Amino acid sequence: MRIIYYCDAGANALGVMLNDSQFLPLQDIAPDLPHTLKGLLQIEGWQATIEQRLDCVPSPRNIKDVRLLPVLPDASVIWCVGVNYKEHQDETGRGKQDQPMLFIRTSHGLIGAYDEMVCPRVSEQFDFEGELAVVIGKAGRHIARENAAAHIAGYAIFNDGSIRDWQRHTTQFCPGKNFEGTGPLGPWMMTADEFGDPYAQTITTRLNRETVQHTAISAMDHKIDALIQYISTIHTVRPGDIISTGTPGGVGMHRKPPLWLKAGDVVSVEITGLGTIRNPVISESSQV
Amino acid sequence: MRIIYYCDAGANALGVMLNDSQFLPLQDIAPDLPHTLKGLLQIEGWQATIEQRLDCVPSPRNIKDVRLLPVLPDASVIWCVGVNYKEHQDETGRGKQDQPMLFIRTSHGLIGAYDEMVCPRVSEQFDFEGELAVVIGKAGRHIARENAAAHIAGYAIFNDGSIRDWQRHTTQFCPGKNFEGTGPLGPWMMTADEFGDPYAQTITTRLNRETVQHTAISAMDHKIDALIQYISTIHTVRPGDIISTGTPGGVGMHRKPPLWLKAGDVVSVEITGLGTIRNPVISESSQV
Repeated sequence: MRIIYYCDAGANALGVMLNDSQFLPLQDIAPDLPHTLKGLLQIEGWQATIEQRLDCVPSPRNIKDVRLLPVLPDASVIWCVGVNYKEHQDETGRGKQDQPMLFIRTSHGLIGAYDEMVCPRVSEQFDFEGELAVVIGKAGRHIARENAAAHIAGYAIFNDGSIRDWQRHTTQFCPGKNFEGTGPLGPWMMTADEFGDPYAQTITTRLNRETVQHTAISAMDHKIDALIQYISTIHTVRPGDIISTGTPGGVGMHRKPPLWLKAGDVVSVEITGLGTIRNPVISESSQV
Repeated sequence: MRIIYYCDAGANALGVMLNDSQFLPLQDIAPDLPHTLKGLLQIEGWQATIEQRLDCVPSPRNIKDVRLLPVLPDASVIWCVGVNYKEHQDETGRGKQDQPMLFIRTSHGLIGAYDEMVCPRVSEQFDFEGELAVVIGKAGRHIARENAAAHIAGYAIFNDGSIRDWQRHTTQFCPGKNFEGTGPLGPWMMTADEFGDPYAQTITTRLNRETVQHTAISAMDHKIDALIQYISTIHTVRPGDIISTGTPGGVGMHRKPPLWLKAGDVVSVEITGLGTIRNPVISESSQV
């Protein structure tokens, strides 16, 4: 099942994809369910409830007729993993990490799957980072690796857009990782049962149709179950928390010469079996 | 004005302090106002509305009869500033930073002003960091230093409890800064007009009544207005966002031998003119 969060005529709502283009507004089939994904994830058996009501189909709508919002705009934490693929470890010179290199993004930087990414006026070092994001569906603390799968609601695609000079103002990445308009998340959350084995898939980032990042997700270093174990040692993971699992090699910063995102570019991230997010780049000064 | 958030008989509510011990439940005098501080801060003129209704005083209650909650349990971001006092720069060996060293805590680690701080079972390196926290009250982006004050709703006391080995697993501090039960925030938010000039005050951390940190807040390196300018360059700051301004020298990690928090300790942070938070330390394994 694929859940979208969208804006239509000024109102935000959840939808259930029927195929790659059509969806049903959730309020048409299950008006009693919460109106945000974070709320929905806290309802026991929400997925079965929706599935039971898909038969009595009202009129489906087309995804092109609405604006997709970030699927979890109110995520209370987005844990991001630095240098979690070998090629990216090599290009950054940071090497393999014994423990996950974790930093935090907040929901302030999230945008929709096809929204414009914003190149900030204070920097020209705007870089892309295609990533697989995991959405937590069940609360837990001290989760063992072998039990981690039970805590995953689904997956989404994330572009961990990074302002490299601000990321390097000090040793701490957070400032460069939290700029407004730099973190597209979507297009939907695909439930874990539908996505299947993440490690059977590949991730590809394209800049103006040219492939700039491409790897098998199986090349991930600290795997998803290990990340859930590590993070749930820190605190109780909760429905709607996001773990973005790191980007492969090929980022713009480590190219010679560096390849920075600029107004007019289009950057897309595709994960096989999951979908594609695609974002035009604009400059902050051109925002209305 | 001092706003508390408290739990009484299983229900959470806001209160307004009348003096150091008595408060009025906000719902008794202004039932139409939101029931969380984050909600309240988004209401234009909330402070004046409350002040107008303080005359028709119903029965005040005693703060000792309720449990104080973290005053902003749903803060969507807590920006923390590393090494922002010279003594702490010296003891850590990190030196003066040209830009603020910013990392993020999420709301997952917040606890009340008198709640038990939890020494996690995976570490013995639990350390204290007394800090002045700034609460944003008005949204804004690209806020100039000279306009920063208008965006401050008030102040609270924060203990940026830190798990030092987890803070140093990689270059990124976030894991060691986000453990559950390590971030007391309170006892109240004191409005900016009542607190007055933060730089006229001092901050003191005590461990079992012994002073372990003590400094004039005026010794802060990157000042509050500069922090608001820097952070609002990254994204729009919003009502309920928190900026914790860094800890002075004297933390446990840099003592010889190191001084770690352990079960049975009591750690307090006092800021003159603002109040005191005081937290007993327990071990995670003793939690019910």
